[in-house]
Amino acid sequence: MNENKISQLFGIQYPIIQAGMVWASGWRLASAVSNAGGLGLIGAGSMYPEILREHIQKCKKATPHPFGVNVPLLYPDIDQLMEVIVTEKVPIVFSAAGNPKLWTDYLKLHGCTVVHVVSSVKFALKAQESGVDAVVAEGFEAGGHNGREETTTLTLIPIVKKAIHIPLIAAGGIGSGPAMLAAMALGADAVQVGSRFVATHEASSHINFKEEVLKAGQGATVLTLKELTPVRMMKNSFYQKINNLYKAGATVEQLQETLGRGRAKKGMFEGDLVEGELEIGQVAAQIEKIIPAEAVVKEFIETYNSTLNSLPKID
Amino acid sequence: MNENKISQLFGIQYPIIQAGMVWASGWRLASAVSNAGGLGLIGAGSMYPEILREHIQKCKKATPHPFGVNVPLLYPDIDQLMEVIVTEKVPIVFSAAGNPKLWTDYLKLHGCTVVHVVSSVKFALKAQESGVDAVVAEGFEAGGHNGREETTTLTLIPIVKKAIHIPLIAAGGIGSGPAMLAAMALGADAVQVGSRFVATHEASSHINFKEEVLKAGQGATVLTLKELTPVRMMKNSFYQKINNLYKAGATVEQLQETLGRGRAKKGMFEGDLVEGELEIGQVAAQIEKIIPAEAVVKEFIETYNSTLNSLPKID
Repeated sequence: MNENKISQLFGIQYPIIQAGMVWASGWRLASAVSNAGGLGLIGAGSMYPEILREHIQKCKKATPHPFGVNVPLLYPDIDQLMEVIVTEKVPIVFSAAGNPKLWTDYLKLHGCTVVHVVSSVKFALKAQESGVDAVVAEGFEAGGHNGREETTTLTLIPIVKKAIHIPLIAAGGIGSGPAMLAAMALGADAVQVGSRFVATHEASSHINFKEEVLKAGQGATVLTLKELTPVRMMKNSFYQKINNLYKAGATVEQLQETLGRGRAKKGMFEGDLVEGELEIGQVAAQIEKIIPAEAVVKEFIETYNSTLNSLPKID
Repeated sequence: MNENKISQLFGIQYPIIQAGMVWASGWRLASAVSNAGGLGLIGAGSMYPEILREHIQKCKKATPHPFGVNVPLLYPDIDQLMEVIVTEKVPIVFSAAGNPKLWTDYLKLHGCTVVHVVSSVKFALKAQESGVDAVVAEGFEAGGHNGREETTTLTLIPIVKKAIHIPLIAAGGIGSGPAMLAAMALGADAVQVGSRFVATHEASSHINFKEEVLKAGQGATVLTLKELTPVRMMKNSFYQKINNLYKAGATVEQLQETLGRGRAKKGMFEGDLVEGELEIGQVAAQIEKIIPAEAVVKEFIETYNSTLNSLPKID
């Protein structure tokens, strides 16, 4: 019998969630992860509502297992996205980047299991008060959007665990079975894995970006744009432009202008490694091969178990 | 039989090292930790050579067990410190903040076991080439001086482990037995614990500072002064001064002038919470009580073992 709280909550085999990531996690990746026994998430942040509908419908056909959608609540057409989600009867919704009080009741009324992504104890408590079923706590090392406190996963998980009573999913820096074991030792019930799933066959990320992730070493990423929304990205030419603006004492408006629109799509989906924004976590330094999503899940479980067996009691 | 590589290397019972910390770890703390079965380190960074000699002599009288000295290699009178260390026959030396090639041969010729503290794979390899016996890899969340890559402990340990073949000690964010287990799951042979030992009876830190550590919540610390030597400290009035200088576009020279001299002593040893520099790690948010150092070691071992027992195999 599977007694893991998160496996039970979602009706899945393994407590591994594939993060909903812009320009990376469409129906192919989500269904592959769900078919492998984890929970796949479609990342709605880079989709128009009708594109999201298409991905949901394809995902349903591609897997008989539960899957979910990740929705950044600051999305401009959020009402339309939510309507798609409930009319398509998506069983699980991960919300992020916004106030969990706005949509949790609505989603739960429509039968969704709701999880909210946070990077602090304060917002974990807010999410719990809003009635969500679980919380993802994401550390400083994670790729993409991130918290202002810069709290790392190792120090964040214990304090969130202590503060809340609902199930807790750890995210940020988890790229292997041993790291999954580390997160569970700290009190997490499950892990959310982003970067490792970018370098899979099923991710919709451009091959140029996937190969750049393989090349990334230590220090290849940085958390920047802290005046806007902090985001972790690779230190490519586009980032150097941002950095030069900082050195020149640029205003928030000047930063926004340089960012412009579509930088994330250009980098991660169209493969422009020079002018595009390349969001990935510190764990990129550990990724060496593009493999199928199923192999990622298997490797996590195998090395979680073998590492658990190898750790000695201390006396 | 104790098969742990670090326990064997140092001749200690538990693979827990108390970090050598300025203004916190004199002979009282070091001997208490060594008496409790860990390895205590005297932090030489805040000591004149003759003060260090006094601490070493007192430590020898206070414990029959091995202990060590932590030496920042950029110390101005480094030759004198090293002479004290070898004439006093200190068995174990942790070197930090400098080139490990400079002193490793000398120390080993005098019979010392030598460990070097790094924050990157590159310097871990350099340390190994220099002939050190083990490496401490310290993550972004650690208090005090820190690396420029901002790599967190969770993502740093696996890549250092993969790169080197000598024993590895994890540091940064390790404030409890479960975090120790997490570090060991990632491949560390032992842990170095700093912040948790600041809030002990035996630490020489001022009581005002210890109590401030208890009050610290998430986001209470920040890694700053990246143009000089990056250092993690509490966001007190002194830090606000630094931050205001940044906002005003200060030069490195202006920053150095504001820092002045003796800020660390003023804050951590004299207890001036307003004008002093208060170095502590992110793990401060987990610390709730000032307890004896022996109780810290016991609690680590007990909760390491109980957490290990509680983690399920996943299938």
